[in-house]
Amino acid sequence: MLEELKEKVFRANLDLVRHGLVIFTWGNVSGIDRESGLVVIKPSGVDYDTMKADDMVVVDLDGNIAEGNLKPSSDTPTHLAIYRAWPEVGGVVHTHSTYATAWAQAGKDIPNIGTTHADYFHHAIPCTADMTESEVKGQYELETGNVIIRRFGEMNPMHTPGVLVRNHGPFSWGKDPHDAVHNAVVMEQVAKMAFIAYGVNPGLTMNPLLIEKHYNRKHGPGAYYGQTKH
Amino acid sequence: MLEELKEKVFRANLDLVRHGLVIFTWGNVSGIDRESGLVVIKPSGVDYDTMKADDMVVVDLDGNIAEGNLKPSSDTPTHLAIYRAWPEVGGVVHTHSTYATAWAQAGKDIPNIGTTHADYFHHAIPCTADMTESEVKGQYELETGNVIIRRFGEMNPMHTPGVLVRNHGPFSWGKDPHDAVHNAVVMEQVAKMAFIAYGVNPGLTMNPLLIEKHYNRKHGPGAYYGQTKH
Amino acid sequence: MLEELKEKVFRANLDLVRHGLVIFTWGNVSGIDRESGLVVIKPSGVDYDTMKADDMVVVDLDGNIAEGNLKPSSDTPTHLAIYRAWPEVGGVVHTHSTYATAWAQAGKDIPNIGTTHADYFHHAIPCTADMTESEVKGQYELETGNVIIRRFGEMNPMHTPGVLVRNHGPFSWGKDPHDAVHNAVVMEQVAKMAFIAYGVNPGLTMNPLLIEKHYNRKHGPGAYYGQTKH
Amino acid sequence: MLEELKEKVFRANLDLVRHGLVIFTWGNVSGIDRESGLVVIKPSGVDYDTMKADDMVVVDLDGNIAEGNLKPSSDTPTHLAIYRAWPEVGGVVHTHSTYATAWAQAGKDIPNIGTTHADYFHHAIPCTADMTESEVKGQYELETGNVIIRRFGEMNPMHTPGVLVRNHGPFSWGKDPHDAVHNAVVMEQVAKMAFIAYGVNPGLTMNPLLIEKHYNRKHGPGAYYGQTKH
Repeated sequence: MLEELKEKVFRANLDLVRHGLVIFTWGNVSGIDRESGLVVIKPSGVDYDTMKADDMVVVDLDGNIAEGNLKPSSDTPTHLAIYRAWPEVGGVVHTHSTYATAWAQAGKDIPNIGTTHADYFHHAIPCTADMTESEVKGQYELETGNVIIRRFGEMNPMHTPGVLVRNHGPFSWGKDPHDAVHNAVVMEQVAKMAFIAYGVNPGLTMNPLLIEKHYNRKHGPGAYYGQTKH
Repeated sequence: MLEELKEKVFRANLDLVRHGLVIFTWGNVSGIDRESGLVVIKPSGVDYDTMKADDMVVVDLDGNIAEGNLKPSSDTPTHLAIYRAWPEVGGVVHTHSTYATAWAQAGKDIPNIGTTHADYFHHAIPCTADMTESEVKGQYELETGNVIIRRFGEMNPMHTPGVLVRNHGPFSWGKDPHDAVHNAVVMEQVAKMAFIAYGVNPGLTMNPLLIEKHYNRKHGPGAYYGQTKH
Repeated sequence: MLEELKEKVFRANLDLVRHGLVIFTWGNVSGIDRESGLVVIKPSGVDYDTMKADDMVVVDLDGNIAEGNLKPSSDTPTHLAIYRAWPEVGGVVHTHSTYATAWAQAGKDIPNIGTTHADYFHHAIPCTADMTESEVKGQYELETGNVIIRRFGEMNPMHTPGVLVRNHGPFSWGKDPHDAVHNAVVMEQVAKMAFIAYGVNPGLTMNPLLIEKHYNRKHGPGAYYGQTKH
Repeated sequence: MLEELKEKVFRANLDLVRHGLVIFTWGNVSGIDRESGLVVIKPSGVDYDTMKADDMVVVDLDGNIAEGNLKPSSDTPTHLAIYRAWPEVGGVVHTHSTYATAWAQAGKDIPNIGTTHADYFHHAIPCTADMTESEVKGQYELETGNVIIRRFGEMNPMHTPGVLVRNHGPFSWGKDPHDAVHNAVVMEQVAKMAFIAYGVNPGLTMNPLLIEKHYNRKHGPGAYYGQTKH
């Protein structure tokens, strides 16, 4: 069932390790087959060294296991909430990557202060609100998805494909699992650069013209970066 | 004698290097066989490149050498004090890993400010008090163990399996040597993240609800992270 | 056409990855054949893993494609502006390397505070002015070159072979592509050291005598560093 | 001539790269044969990739070349001044390692704030005074050695085997080239930890009892660290 997507999700999980975003089992990637409404996700707490593509778990959008002998990632309800809310999302990533997690612990949005950021994220990467007692003590992982979605409100999630869950860490997404991992790598990198940049100059400012220019030269209607139109 | 435990302790010592926690001979791991009351520990000042499982030294809980041609780690009395005080401990690790050691030099507890921390350590990772003249000039390594144990007081050491010895560096422990190394890696990572997070926002706050939720979802009675019950 | 220069530019692009200055496709190197006035440059958005020397694109100094099936780097007009303005430049590099980019985001020149800096860059590595609306909305990449050239004014670009484009990132150059990459590595390293040094002592001072001494012992008329005269 | 020492100095130079202290040709190691009074040192500006043991240059304590076809390191007069002043020194290292160089640029001694430091360096690692006009414009590399020696005054250089040359970078030494490299690695590590520790707590304090204890347990008359007496 969905062998090709399982392979993609498996590879994307290993890419998290290769890019230095994950130690131990601290991350998970999923991908969705929009036609069938089925989601493929990493199993919970399985070593990356021994994990196989066949270990990926298939669940429906309500979280029922459609195939797989292992328990899916404990963060599955967060992934599913994102897929249900935002139909353009094809892949979701969660990590505890060092700098992005530190910004989440700091409870601060990562401001858009450079073209590296603007090439991928139109706005600041938002940090969610504190979760309430009923959210934490209720269906916690589902509610984590809900605070993410609420934080975006009218913002287009495909234009700013990542978020910091306060005191927790980053989630990112994209048109497929590979793209979601790519955005996770960028988020970690811009988080690191912003930490250093504010260390150098706490009063730094960003030229808003550059945000529009860089975001649009890669993602706008007249995009001209790379070999093919975006 | 205790060949299996020697192999485990040997592997755990090499894992410290693999995880980037140790340069030169700046670390040591031990494991205990609770049935016989014997402890297996790294020899003192031996190169990791040439060290063999057979070089591990066997000592009893009073520090008498039961087997081995090499001197045990100079930190052996600290390890033994921990094994004597806390019967659930099966493995102990000491390193001079960069960020955890820096927090120890700063003389500060590492506050619990994120779910990465709360997934493994229930409370702040405590920093010990200054050692007194009689402690330093007396049985120094034994007294290092005593200041650790005194710092914990009524705290459960299995719920917060690590400590910073002030102006020195981290010790961690676990149910076995492998688990103790795992906790040493986590401590270094949360020390790094906390350094960055306070750099971003010196006034950051932690949601205490998240601490209980994350600690218990991995270690509480209804734990549901991973493939098996904890 | 220009097979040797293509090979050099190709190798120099891979060197950016090897030195840790580039992730994904975030960098580009070019080289010029001054006799023919033709520039060889990396294609836009092509994976470093699959890129071949033959994929390099040849353009003239006005940006017309002389050879190549792929689109040249979107930053080509910036490279060309530099080649047109400064006849001694033989290679140009652009990266988003972490520390140099952070200084660019901070909007600050990297001050010359050590002999590592003075060995390669005579003066502070300057940061450009904010780009205006007409520059950003006009021929943006060409104007990026123009703000660089304007920022140098009467300064000798071969004595300070690098610049920070504000809120964007570093450009460097040299007598050939290899030399330009070398200067990009140095710029990243001095950016990192300066970040740490100001963290240690915000009021630090540089001995101006050392700048002259070190710059001249490598680049002055009586240079005596290395095996051959410079 | 001195083939064994050449091999040791050659290996020690490569170790600088392996330990991440040196990029390009930014470092040099020498060793002395006290019987003949001859010093073996790295040639100036030669690539580490192609360098051979035979490329090492032999000079006498006055700097006359005794053997070798290449020019010795431009820092040779600094090495020789150290050998002439301190007869116990058997090897000297100079690097531009990141954190130690940053402390040199900051113009600050690296304070002894932890047992990692005290295990190797009895006191703060001192930073030299600003060099005067006549020193910089005169025999600069010789005078660099002189400011180092003057800074130590009555301090025992074998008890604190390293120094920061202000606005320049670290020099270290030891009983042989291997030991001097070891001390260079430790200096970089304690420089990094001190940067982080002061970031965490600018008002941190060190327990002076620990300095004496740790320094003496490795280097004092009753040393008991490692397998053999020191």
